[in-house]
Amino acid sequence: MLIVMKPQATEDDVRRVCQKIEALGYRPHSMPGAQRTAIGITGNKGPLEPEDFESLPGVAEAIPVSKPYKLVSREVKSEDSLIRVGPQSNSVTFGGPELAIIAGPCAVESRAQAFAAAECVKKAGARLFRGGAFKPRTSPYSFQGLGKEGLEILAEVRGEFGLLIVTETIDPENCDLVEEYADVLQIGARNMQNFSLLKRAGRSTKPVLLKRGMSATLEEFLMAAEYILSEGNYNVILCERGVRTFADHTRNTLDLSVIPAVKRASHLPIIVDPSHGTGKRDKVTPLARAAVAVGADGLIVEVHPEPERALSDGYQSLDPDQFEALMEQIAAIAGVLGRTVERKQGKEIGSRK
Amino acid sequence: MLIVMKPQATEDDVRRVCQKIEALGYRPHSMPGAQRTAIGITGNKGPLEPEDFESLPGVAEAIPVSKPYKLVSREVKSEDSLIRVGPQSNSVTFGGPELAIIAGPCAVESRAQAFAAAECVKKAGARLFRGGAFKPRTSPYSFQGLGKEGLEILAEVRGEFGLLIVTETIDPENCDLVEEYADVLQIGARNMQNFSLLKRAGRSTKPVLLKRGMSATLEEFLMAAEYILSEGNYNVILCERGVRTFADHTRNTLDLSVIPAVKRASHLPIIVDPSHGTGKRDKVTPLARAAVAVGADGLIVEVHPEPERALSDGYQSLDPDQFEALMEQIAAIAGVLGRTVERKQGKEIGSRK
Amino acid sequence: MLIVMKPQATEDDVRRVCQKIEALGYRPHSMPGAQRTAIGITGNKGPLEPEDFESLPGVAEAIPVSKPYKLVSREVKSEDSLIRVGPQSNSVTFGGPELAIIAGPCAVESRAQAFAAAECVKKAGARLFRGGAFKPRTSPYSFQGLGKEGLEILAEVRGEFGLLIVTETIDPENCDLVEEYADVLQIGARNMQNFSLLKRAGRSTKPVLLKRGMSATLEEFLMAAEYILSEGNYNVILCERGVRTFADHTRNTLDLSVIPAVKRASHLPIIVDPSHGTGKRDKVTPLARAAVAVGADGLIVEVHPEPERALSDGYQSLDPDQFEALMEQIAAIAGVLGRTVERKQGKEIGSRK
Amino acid sequence: MLIVMKPQATEDDVRRVCQKIEALGYRPHSMPGAQRTAIGITGNKGPLEPEDFESLPGVAEAIPVSKPYKLVSREVKSEDSLIRVGPQSNSVTFGGPELAIIAGPCAVESRAQAFAAAECVKKAGARLFRGGAFKPRTSPYSFQGLGKEGLEILAEVRGEFGLLIVTETIDPENCDLVEEYADVLQIGARNMQNFSLLKRAGRSTKPVLLKRGMSATLEEFLMAAEYILSEGNYNVILCERGVRTFADHTRNTLDLSVIPAVKRASHLPIIVDPSHGTGKRDKVTPLARAAVAVGADGLIVEVHPEPERALSDGYQSLDPDQFEALMEQIAAIAGVLGRTVERKQGKEIGSRK
Repeated sequence: MLIVMKPQATEDDVRRVCQKIEALGYRPHSMPGAQRTAIGITGNKGPLEPEDFESLPGVAEAIPVSKPYKLVSREVKSEDSLIRVGPQSNSVTFGGPELAIIAGPCAVESRAQAFAAAECVKKAGARLFRGGAFKPRTSPYSFQGLGKEGLEILAEVRGEFGLLIVTETIDPENCDLVEEYADVLQIGARNMQNFSLLKRAGRSTKPVLLKRGMSATLEEFLMAAEYILSEGNYNVILCERGVRTFADHTRNTLDLSVIPAVKRASHLPIIVDPSHGTGKRDKVTPLARAAVAVGADGLIVEVHPEPERALSDGYQSLDPDQFEALMEQIAAIAGVLGRTVERKQGKEIGSRK
Repeated sequence: MLIVMKPQATEDDVRRVCQKIEALGYRPHSMPGAQRTAIGITGNKGPLEPEDFESLPGVAEAIPVSKPYKLVSREVKSEDSLIRVGPQSNSVTFGGPELAIIAGPCAVESRAQAFAAAECVKKAGARLFRGGAFKPRTSPYSFQGLGKEGLEILAEVRGEFGLLIVTETIDPENCDLVEEYADVLQIGARNMQNFSLLKRAGRSTKPVLLKRGMSATLEEFLMAAEYILSEGNYNVILCERGVRTFADHTRNTLDLSVIPAVKRASHLPIIVDPSHGTGKRDKVTPLARAAVAVGADGLIVEVHPEPERALSDGYQSLDPDQFEALMEQIAAIAGVLGRTVERKQGKEIGSRK
Repeated sequence: MLIVMKPQATEDDVRRVCQKIEALGYRPHSMPGAQRTAIGITGNKGPLEPEDFESLPGVAEAIPVSKPYKLVSREVKSEDSLIRVGPQSNSVTFGGPELAIIAGPCAVESRAQAFAAAECVKKAGARLFRGGAFKPRTSPYSFQGLGKEGLEILAEVRGEFGLLIVTETIDPENCDLVEEYADVLQIGARNMQNFSLLKRAGRSTKPVLLKRGMSATLEEFLMAAEYILSEGNYNVILCERGVRTFADHTRNTLDLSVIPAVKRASHLPIIVDPSHGTGKRDKVTPLARAAVAVGADGLIVEVHPEPERALSDGYQSLDPDQFEALMEQIAAIAGVLGRTVERKQGKEIGSRK
Repeated sequence: MLIVMKPQATEDDVRRVCQKIEALGYRPHSMPGAQRTAIGITGNKGPLEPEDFESLPGVAEAIPVSKPYKLVSREVKSEDSLIRVGPQSNSVTFGGPELAIIAGPCAVESRAQAFAAAECVKKAGARLFRGGAFKPRTSPYSFQGLGKEGLEILAEVRGEFGLLIVTETIDPENCDLVEEYADVLQIGARNMQNFSLLKRAGRSTKPVLLKRGMSATLEEFLMAAEYILSEGNYNVILCERGVRTFADHTRNTLDLSVIPAVKRASHLPIIVDPSHGTGKRDKVTPLARAAVAVGADGLIVEVHPEPERALSDGYQSLDPDQFEALMEQIAAIAGVLGRTVERKQGKEIGSRK
């Protein structure tokens, strides 16, 4: 059930509706919009009676929600969500006209490597830095990340370059540590249905970057996001990173049609990872262009100062020159869609002035 | 085995190599390039001796070919193939800087419907008209096309609007009829491994548009093209139209990464069908933009004057206004890649001179 | 629409219903059952009126059919279809309590090879011999079969060993030739939606073995069979041979759950091909056991006198000893399900009376 | 690297090899077999020198291991692992000639429901009881299990019926609680690559039932098991429960060919879950028969006293009568393979003495 308030409803009206919901033993989720506030209800086992709410002052409508997802749904919130990342003084917004670009190495390997990567990421104009300190690896014998030391290096990168930090959290306990350092908590594809981790991230104050699982349907993807929102954290950024199919010319099959599908079903922003989505360096830039053209709100790209020496994912990482070229190309395509890509020195490429 | 001739090799040199190949019981495929001629050899059961050929006058090199495909391979022909469709006086080239746009209804339903569709296709600037006269349908009880009457309507469309005709052939016998009317023979996804049809198309003088099968790997796709080339018809245009996966938010999963993968492995042009690739009208335009951004050489799009009244595929057909908007958008994106989309009255949009 | 006749309806009653259907411009399909006759109607564009038929003498009920398939449906014919193959004097029935086992090499390579294979097939107790004369191959440069010579060898095998012949037809024209020689026309997975071939097979007097396409849904599989039945040939045997998935430990993923699913939706018999279904010799026998245990009506198995010397599919062919062991094992499992496997000299193994 | 000891090697010899491995900074895994002991080495970044070990007393051979998995590999341990579950006085062994059958409801819903289910499970002869106390559910609004109360009910079931308890653990912290109550820790398909949970389970003294992920390759499946073994817990039972494909006639596609593939690659036992593998009640028994016929070491089946009233998965749960019939059928098929299914009152069905 979704309670839509009238535009002129007061804060008191909203509070009264929430109290009524709580009194019935359910949980209210108040979502203020530019025009008016909507209040989602969760925790109910069966259907509710619209009449119970429509008689309250300030209530415009009580709408039964047909999809299994509620809080992530456009039915509940018709306007795009803008997710602001970072402190007021240095923030980046996902979901608005400006694309958000996250770049950096697969894993933080050393202070020197991270700084070299950060320098090239910043030089090309990206505002967010990615780098894994805790790495979920298929083999127990593969490099599993530097752990806390990696997080400390990431904090130094932020201090030195002003880049915002996106890094992965791998379990609920680990989340306590990662959220001290990260500006965005990343949840990887293999953990998309790790419900304990989703709930923990839902109780964090940090925005969450949620990657689509390798064989997740659109509904499962949105339901995973719903777990996070249902715990109170509405700052979720979705990410398409390729799905598993029979096709063997790329590591995964990047499903770009999910971008307009998510945009239709949900108000949440969605970005694309063309590095994991293809697993091959020479396909990253073409698919990054396609991602922007299809309407994604940003990209997350693996960039390594010396890809051939990377401890992981080197074969899909761009070198600094390739990344600069990518930024040029996507800025031009963003312009065609009336969007922008911020570049260094405040220069905006792709805006049609 | 591939014989690469010296740039200064004469026609006689080439003929002598071909005679030698025939004398050994194999089949030569001479492929003249801008710089020099290459000669592919097919029909050999086992490996050949390079020395047998390198001693002949005009021969630069004899290269064993490692991939199962030969004639379609970049190893055999490093330059992009330009496939010219239509008569000299009104031709369109696939594979060059200008994108080739094919549009029209799923099936020819009547003269009136075809003419209405052709008018809007031409108005929006497309040069090629699609429309099925013979329709492979999942159900024997579905509309199977107008047959020969449909072909005659298509011929009228060409006469009236100057549009080149792309239409499907469904079996070797049917090919005799279709090639009398079509400028391009289309082979559908379900027939991608109908080897009898591929061989028949390989003996046609008309270019062939070969759609990727629903679960075809890159290698199988290229091998299907190889069947056509191996019979002597080198004018093959590939087409990605979505593959079958678990994902259920679109009818098929459009695999745009296959575009750079084909470009790397083969010299043949490749276009994209965002209509079948998504199966949903509201996703056609975003994916068409993405297809151009990823580097496709053109598009094939379903356009119907009144989609809601179409006998087939109405739910994925654009109406005339939507198609015009699509043409505007892809022309702009093509410009970013240094490519063009020809528009009516010679106006070229997308070239940023 | 399906017309169900009363048990006591006369032949005249049935004829009158058929005439009425024809008078309306549709096509009647009379299907006599043990209890009573049902008459399917095809060719109608929209829904029919039950009342038009229920008033005729001998009609019990007129039932609208909801599934897109009609003639193959259990709604139309509730009893299992028994498909008899071969002449009266030497016939095998598919769909009854006795399992039908087809075995032999992938391709007929020579008279000697075919005879050696036939000897071991017969010795192990199988009654049907498989062997391709026309081979659909992914590569135009692979062995494509002996053609008509292969068919003649197969006819000799029948004459010499009394085995019934199952061999593939690859296009409508080719079907004219193949049906002169074959007892069962095989349509391969790549041709499952070659509708021209399906229609041609539907006009044959020979039973058809229809293999499931690599990415065919249950509905598409049954609709392909429907094409054959809708042309008047009701003798269709279905065959599961593995579908294409991401899994790479077998060549295809054998989908045994389709057996009970077909049994529920259709009256047609279905067998399993564990050779193509796995693509690996060591998995053929375990999956053959599983196929019988799940309820398949038979098997088609690749057997070669010398697998390591086969021109195609050697890696998935059993040698004579392995095939004999397979026959022993499936006979025992068939017995558990109350079914039998006929063995040489009339000895029935598997019935444990 | 794998160190194979001579049959006559002493415990001292083994200890010396382990000390040498530790001295090099790696980790030894001693695996005593019936004939001789093998010692796996993990923790090494690069290749090791066989010579370093072959000179030690008692060492027969030092073999480089080529697969990414080591401890789970047949190369490392050629004999089947027998995993004993439960206390000495009431244990069940996975991997031996007797099949292990786990049955019970999807979730523990109440004491009464669990007891009713347990009664029918015991009556039909199964020795292990399944029932979720913590349920990973796609929706945050679905029933998530009774939690600790559910575990206590399971402990009562064990006390009352003597059934061993298999129940799911959903995160590392939760594992502390679950292992107090369970005889086998189940890790669900969605958590197959939850590496934190795998490592925690690897430090448990309880055997682990590891379900294959929805899109896991054989290698990823075995690598997930390797995580558990690499932490020291060698008691891992694998479970095939269906993979995600395009096929829509079942909820998942049960991949029975993975059973012989696992048997070839690994020494670990593997069972099958035909309930989740098909998601449809009428397909559970046929696929259970097939699983036993293909060579699985056991089954895990959903049984509910009143399936139509179940809070979750009712549509795929068998009722008591159906489960008894299933047990009869699989016992007979097990007999064909020389295996047995223990039944109540010590009656063994399926052994053909």
